[in-house]
Amino acid sequence: MEHLKQLIRDIPDFPQPDILFRDITPLLGHPTAFREVVAALAERFRGRVDVVAGIESRGFIFGAPLALELDVPFVPIRKVGKLPGEKLTREYALEYGTATLEIHTDAVGPGQRVLVLDDLLATGGTARAAAGLIEAVGGSVEAVAVAIELLFLDGRGALEGYEVHSLVQY
Amino acid sequence: MEHLKQLIRDIPDFPQPDILFRDITPLLGHPTAFREVVAALAERFRGRVDVVAGIESRGFIFGAPLALELDVPFVPIRKVGKLPGEKLTREYALEYGTATLEIHTDAVGPGQRVLVLDDLLATGGTARAAAGLIEAVGGSVEAVAVAIELLFLDGRGALEGYEVHSLVQY
Repeated sequence: MEHLKQLIRDIPDFPQPDILFRDITPLLGHPTAFREVVAALAERFRGRVDVVAGIESRGFIFGAPLALELDVPFVPIRKVGKLPGEKLTREYALEYGTATLEIHTDAVGPGQRVLVLDDLLATGGTARAAAGLIEAVGGSVEAVAVAIELLFLDGRGALEGYEVHSLVQY
Repeated sequence: MEHLKQLIRDIPDFPQPDILFRDITPLLGHPTAFREVVAALAERFRGRVDVVAGIESRGFIFGAPLALELDVPFVPIRKVGKLPGEKLTREYALEYGTATLEIHTDAVGPGQRVLVLDDLLATGGTARAAAGLIEAVGGSVEAVAVAIELLFLDGRGALEGYEVHSLVQY
């Protein structure tokens, strides 16, 4: 889906010097293209997943419509301190420092097949933490799907053992 | 839509003592009910809005599918430091301290009618800041819509002059 790159804006030096940020807001501003992303993901995973889990925040933007399209529950995987119920927490390493994700312990039933969704795959640390949380609450990770994959950061390497699917690669 | 309350879980003392948190994760876990929320909002605003602007993060969960349903652009209004492009910033008061929202300056065209969407209306400070940002970049706020309204906090008072629409009231 190379044509989607026309709707992904390059912003140099964000969030820090020498990082080229891939901005999806133009894509979100084109409902036909946004719908195409959701449809492409739905086509690939229809019948294969019982739950769509979106990673806060941009994973919510693609994950919520996808869950509705697939007619399955949507589960938010959130940053620390946001989920109000009984939850599990996983801290993971970033290039500098750490980040933390959380999931409600009742979010996924035993053995349910879960699609982990985010907007972008970089080093894979966030998606791996999310997948670990799914498994820790009893779910089975069917795949990790993203709109954009940054190939040079080898997120697939960090996600060995998981199916990884992306629509646009850089 | 009182029946949706069955899918909104009360969590006492979150995020702090004496606050009763209204947790929408059970609703998100029921695709039929989740779809009903999106459909109800779409029915009310179809033909009346050119853009749906969702407030980070839970406003994304309802706003993205609603924008797709209405076939209009989705604009994310984000917390500080997340949007990569040229942007406007608005700080607003919370009960303790302040919070900040941002919008891309090119997110909304001149005179476009914008629906501001969030999951919950409490004191109205967040929605008012979001509406102010929409207007500051040249848009027109058609309405503020939420899934849940906490009537006792009088968010409508803070949003005087705006149409406010909620599906479930406490």
